[in-house]
Amino acid sequence: MRIKMLLLVFLCIVGELFAQTADEKTFRTIYDQALTKGKSYEWLRHLSLQIGGRLSGSYQAQQAVDYTKKELEALGLDKVWLQGVMVPKWVRGLKEYAYIEQGAGEQTIVPICALGGSVATPGGGIKAEVVEVKNFEELKALGKEKIAGKIVFYNRPMDPKLINTLHAYGGCVNQRGSGAKEAASLGAIGVIVRSMNLRLDDYPHTGAMSYGDLPKSKWIPAAAISTNGAELLSTMIRLNPNTKFFFRQSCKNMPEVKSYNVIGEIKGTEFPNEIIIVGGHLDSWDLGDGSHDDGAGVVQSMEVLRIMKQMNYKPKRTLRVVLFMNEENGLRGGRKYAEVARQKGEKHVFALESDLGGFTPRGFTFDCTTEQFAQVQSWKKLFEPYLIHLFIRDGSGADIGPLKDGNLVLAGLRPDSQRYFDHHHSDADTFDAVNKRELELGAATMTSLIYLYDKYGVQTPKKPKG
Amino acid sequence: MRIKMLLLVFLCIVGELFAQTADEKTFRTIYDQALTKGKSYEWLRHLSLQIGGRLSGSYQAQQAVDYTKKELEALGLDKVWLQGVMVPKWVRGLKEYAYIEQGAGEQTIVPICALGGSVATPGGGIKAEVVEVKNFEELKALGKEKIAGKIVFYNRPMDPKLINTLHAYGGCVNQRGSGAKEAASLGAIGVIVRSMNLRLDDYPHTGAMSYGDLPKSKWIPAAAISTNGAELLSTMIRLNPNTKFFFRQSCKNMPEVKSYNVIGEIKGTEFPNEIIIVGGHLDSWDLGDGSHDDGAGVVQSMEVLRIMKQMNYKPKRTLRVVLFMNEENGLRGGRKYAEVARQKGEKHVFALESDLGGFTPRGFTFDCTTEQFAQVQSWKKLFEPYLIHLFIRDGSGADIGPLKDGNLVLAGLRPDSQRYFDHHHSDADTFDAVNKRELELGAATMTSLIYLYDKYGVQTPKKPKG
Repeated sequence: MRIKMLLLVFLCIVGELFAQTADEKTFRTIYDQALTKGKSYEWLRHLSLQIGGRLSGSYQAQQAVDYTKKELEALGLDKVWLQGVMVPKWVRGLKEYAYIEQGAGEQTIVPICALGGSVATPGGGIKAEVVEVKNFEELKALGKEKIAGKIVFYNRPMDPKLINTLHAYGGCVNQRGSGAKEAASLGAIGVIVRSMNLRLDDYPHTGAMSYGDLPKSKWIPAAAISTNGAELLSTMIRLNPNTKFFFRQSCKNMPEVKSYNVIGEIKGTEFPNEIIIVGGHLDSWDLGDGSHDDGAGVVQSMEVLRIMKQMNYKPKRTLRVVLFMNEENGLRGGRKYAEVARQKGEKHVFALESDLGGFTPRGFTFDCTTEQFAQVQSWKKLFEPYLIHLFIRDGSGADIGPLKDGNLVLAGLRPDSQRYFDHHHSDADTFDAVNKRELELGAATMTSLIYLYDKYGVQTPKKPKG
Repeated sequence: MRIKMLLLVFLCIVGELFAQTADEKTFRTIYDQALTKGKSYEWLRHLSLQIGGRLSGSYQAQQAVDYTKKELEALGLDKVWLQGVMVPKWVRGLKEYAYIEQGAGEQTIVPICALGGSVATPGGGIKAEVVEVKNFEELKALGKEKIAGKIVFYNRPMDPKLINTLHAYGGCVNQRGSGAKEAASLGAIGVIVRSMNLRLDDYPHTGAMSYGDLPKSKWIPAAAISTNGAELLSTMIRLNPNTKFFFRQSCKNMPEVKSYNVIGEIKGTEFPNEIIIVGGHLDSWDLGDGSHDDGAGVVQSMEVLRIMKQMNYKPKRTLRVVLFMNEENGLRGGRKYAEVARQKGEKHVFALESDLGGFTPRGFTFDCTTEQFAQVQSWKKLFEPYLIHLFIRDGSGADIGPLKDGNLVLAGLRPDSQRYFDHHHSDADTFDAVNKRELELGAATMTSLIYLYDKYGVQTPKKPKG
């Protein structure tokens, strides 16, 4: 009995050693593929330089759908298809124009851009005194009397002390998202929001805003100002409280149009009904060319399936790449994908999104149960030789969020975040700001995680007792 | 007895909790200082944009000595001084010129730069057939017959599969360092070396080379060619084995000149004779402005002492910042510093160098004993909130190397290495390629480690038995 037991332990150890070695070898093959024969960078070059910014409903967004579908088809996947989805269409119109006015003839032009979803100013622009606030509490304390007829200037900067810049973003973005609604409720005629950028520079950063339940008649124009512009405006207001601000923008909400999620699939050999997806979002803002947000995530996700095909890997489970439409201003693609999955009764077991830029990968975040996270942690050692150290429980990605059902594991790639907001939603989000190796390392890291989930399956969460 | 025991355990735990909390607080203060009131970026702006490339013996190198001394003096350290050292002086002369010649009238200009230490070509340049080799074995197999009178083209690229790009560099750099010597021994009249760069681009990358013990009469000119140029040259040779290469360079070795290490010090309050140093090298190549190599290390090291002063931290041990001269082509500053330290009988306990660029810090390498490394590992948890995960035993830094005595711990900052060789030793090593936050995070991470070593001291290595 004892000898049998020892033998069993021995066999387990040997088994594990062999398994380890096989996984290590597969990791090496995956990284070698990405770093020496990778296609992600060339795909991104096309998306960024041949197509450019891909705002939902734009001609460029449709070009991106056509291009990625064609490229996925060329990979020889089992199936590639488009999933139709209606998306909002907002257009920027003419280049925005703004100045700070200290007195007659004393104007200083500053760089602004309309926030996504905002209405236009009247054709001749608007000019009014500016009230600077740092948050909604300050705004409300000032009240209607001080706000009505003014332009509200939200100037709470991202906190440089936060190591993870996503947290700094999270601490500021309500100014952009709800600033117009809050200010309009108190009678403001427009809002100017400090760009979500840690760096002092001249790029205004756009992004989604919403008027919430405010009646359409009360909607006011909202724009972002560059961080240098915000510093300047703040100083001028301090020097002269009667400082006025002028801005003009001609953006417009148009009727919804039909667009598509682009989906490619390799059928599973053992558990074809268990679906693993990897994705990013195909749309971007119209400023810059959307290389980091989220051209990088798109081409990395495509690369995952390309590498699997190149390795001649036959997945046990069904692997899908999903290129979501309309993450930036509607999330319609993510919602549609989840809706169709539910209608069809599809069982998704793992979903991975890359939507934080093409920088050196540091690890992953996981939205899952404690037991599921324990499984992840058992894999950490495999990633360490590739300098992937970060495995934490946190949010995953916006597009895969609607799939959440308490069973499947959701994960997000976590690249280095230090430079992300230098580029995000601005003219500075361009192809030259993406490093080929960093992009490829991200794709390889994603492929490795998908491989492990395919091979070992996902820990089923324990049923609650009772 | 049992109660006393429990009490002791309890007190130990409480003690550790408090100690932990104090260190955690200090870390937070250090990072906050660096990220909100840091001076490293402004110092680097001056070094890079007002002074520029600081090759040993140049006017710019002297300007850098004067500037950093003045800035250190302004910090109110206990002592700031210059340490004289004779350094080699090599000058590039006129801009180099090169072309590939397929036949009469069929020339293609390619970007080259002289390697540091190389002799010039004759004034009219040299032109000869080119022999491409990947390594010294291939060269030697060809032998004198095939090499004599030719230009040898070393074209072994950096290996993209290596995750740590320093290893890829290590696998190639002998072509640059000893290529001329090896080729000259077989009668070659010049060498062209593929730039140490993982990216395909048009920047030639310089760097040190040596003729070793070759008599001066046999010295041949050596230059680097951009990676794109190397690919082109290789293709042309394949298409036409009679392809010729022309290059002209007017670089020159001049008599040695006097230069300086710049040193600043805060005297220790408890163990003033135990010295901790932190440093980078003040010289750079003359291409670009030396922002990453090693302006970053210089300003980060200065920032360590600035933060200590700002925090009003009174170190137990003596803290020194050492800005070494002549790392790139001689290591005279590092050798001089160690020589003087030995003459004075100074006891150095810890030395930290930053010389791998101003990118997001990932951790440190340690050159130390097993027991000393165990001490380091006990500190890992403190660094994790700052996304510092890498603590490994490896080489530290060139300048602090000569201090090595088996007792002191040597360490090197390990920033993310993916983009380093895009810039290293080339016109692409410029201020705009450094990100402020990444630079500051490196400085804070270095300060935190110096703080721990000052507070806890260095584990004394066990004496070997017998």
